[in-house]
Amino acid sequence: MDGSTAFSPDRNILCLFDVDGTLTRPREKIDPLLDEFFQSLRRKVKIGIVGGSDYPKIAEQLGEGDEVVHKFDYVFAENGTVQFKEGKLISRQAIQNQIGEELLQDLINYCLRYMGLMKLPKKRGTFIEFRSGMINISPIGRSCTQEERIEFSELDRREKIRERFVEALQQEFAGKGLRFTRGGLISFDIFPEGWDKRLCLEVLEGESLDTIYFFGNETSLGGNDYEIFNDPRTVGFTVYAPEDTARLCREMFFSGLPNES
Amino acid sequence: MDGSTAFSPDRNILCLFDVDGTLTRPREKIDPLLDEFFQSLRRKVKIGIVGGSDYPKIAEQLGEGDEVVHKFDYVFAENGTVQFKEGKLISRQAIQNQIGEELLQDLINYCLRYMGLMKLPKKRGTFIEFRSGMINISPIGRSCTQEERIEFSELDRREKIRERFVEALQQEFAGKGLRFTRGGLISFDIFPEGWDKRLCLEVLEGESLDTIYFFGNETSLGGNDYEIFNDPRTVGFTVYAPEDTARLCREMFFSGLPNES
Repeated sequence: MDGSTAFSPDRNILCLFDVDGTLTRPREKIDPLLDEFFQSLRRKVKIGIVGGSDYPKIAEQLGEGDEVVHKFDYVFAENGTVQFKEGKLISRQAIQNQIGEELLQDLINYCLRYMGLMKLPKKRGTFIEFRSGMINISPIGRSCTQEERIEFSELDRREKIRERFVEALQQEFAGKGLRFTRGGLISFDIFPEGWDKRLCLEVLEGESLDTIYFFGNETSLGGNDYEIFNDPRTVGFTVYAPEDTARLCREMFFSGLPNES
Repeated sequence: MDGSTAFSPDRNILCLFDVDGTLTRPREKIDPLLDEFFQSLRRKVKIGIVGGSDYPKIAEQLGEGDEVVHKFDYVFAENGTVQFKEGKLISRQAIQNQIGEELLQDLINYCLRYMGLMKLPKKRGTFIEFRSGMINISPIGRSCTQEERIEFSELDRREKIRERFVEALQQEFAGKGLRFTRGGLISFDIFPEGWDKRLCLEVLEGESLDTIYFFGNETSLGGNDYEIFNDPRTVGFTVYAPEDTARLCREMFFSGLPNES
C-alpha cells in the first residue's frame, strides 16, 4: 500500500458484500478500522454492497448521512430492489407493480388479522413496514426497544411465532408467487419470487466486470445470501463475522505486499 | 428592533405555539421569513411549541437536525408528553405505563383486526405507529406517498372511514379512559384521557411566567388545541394560518416600534 487515495485505473473486479453480519454486526455501525480497510480495498477493486435492509438503515450503518453511496461503487438496498451506482439512484422496484394491489392488500389484511388475534407479553407499533421491494412483518412491532426486542426473540425461539406465521402464509398464499424469509430477530420479509439478492446481478451484468466476488454470512439454504452465493455469475465466499470478511479480502488482494498487518 | 441577538433580561411572558397550521402548513417546513420573525420575537419573550406530532417530525419542520430545541425555549412533542426545556429532554411519558400492557394490547389487536377486514383502493405500511404518549392509527398506512395520501383523504371524506373506525373504538372501549382525535389527513390518535396539550402546563407552572399566550388553529371542540386554549392558565388565540400567527405576535409585541413592516 502506498498510502495514495487514487483508484487503480483497471478496477475490473467487484467485491460485493452483504451488510449485516458481513460488514457490520447485525444492525450496528461498521467498525471504524474495518471501514478504513474497505476504503483502502477500494483503491484496488470496485466495492459494492447488497443488503436486505432499506436504504436509510444501510446508510446509517455504513456512514453519516448519504456517505455510503460515495464510499461504495454500488449500493443495493432491500435485496437489490433499490439500486445506486456511483452515488446516484439508478432504479427502484415497487412490490405493488410486481404483485398488484389486489394480492398485496389480501396479504396485508391477512397479516393484520393474524396479528390481531395474537397475544404477546408486549406489543408496540409498526407491525407492517412497506418497503420498495418487500413488506416486513413484525408481530411485536418494529418500534419496540432493544430490551423488548430481545424479550420477543427469546419467546419466538421457544414458541416459533414467526415460523408458524410464515407457515400459515405459505399455505394461504400458495402458488401466488411470494417468498418469505426471516430477517433479524423480530420480523420476516415477504417479497415477489425471484426478488432475492440476484436482482442486483442484472445491473452488474452490463458493467464489464471480470469477476464478481460475493461475501455473505447467510449463504445456506433459507438464508438471504443463498441464491446470489450460488449464482454462476458470482464467486461466493461464506464469512462468519466482519473481521473474517476483512481477513479474506486482505489475503486475496493485499498478500505479498510488505508492511501489511 | 435594534438588530441585537441578545435576549431581553426579563422574558417572563411565554408565547406557546401549536405547530401544524399555526407555525407551519400541515406537515411542511416553516417558511424561512416566519422562522426569522419568531426568532426575533424570542429576543422579547420566551417562545415554545406544543405539537401533536412526534419529536423527529417537529424537528424536521422547524429546523435542521436538532436545531429546534435550541430555537425554542420549550419544545413539547406528542401533545406535551415529550418535554424539552432549554435544549434538554426533561421528561417523556409512556402510554403503556399509563393504561397498562393489557388494555394497550386489546386496543392494538382490535385495530389490527378492524383494519384487516377493511378493503381500500390501496394499502401501504405502518398502520399503527407507537409514540411515547399515544398510538397513531392509519387505515392506508403512514408510508403512503403524497398522491396516495390525497386519494385516501378524499375517500375518507366521502365514506367517513376514520369517523366510523373511531366510533367503533369508542363503543368497544367505552369507560376505559381513552381519547381519540383525528390528526392530519390519513390517521387518528389514541391517548389516555387527560393527555391532551394541557400536559405541558404542568411543567410550565413551575417556571415563574407572568402570562402564557397560546396560539392554535384547532381550538374548537374536538380539535387538539381545544383544551389548552380554554384552560384558565393560558390566554388563548385562534389563528388561521402561520402568517396570521406572525401578524398577531407582531401587533402584540412589536407595535409602536419604528421601522417595523
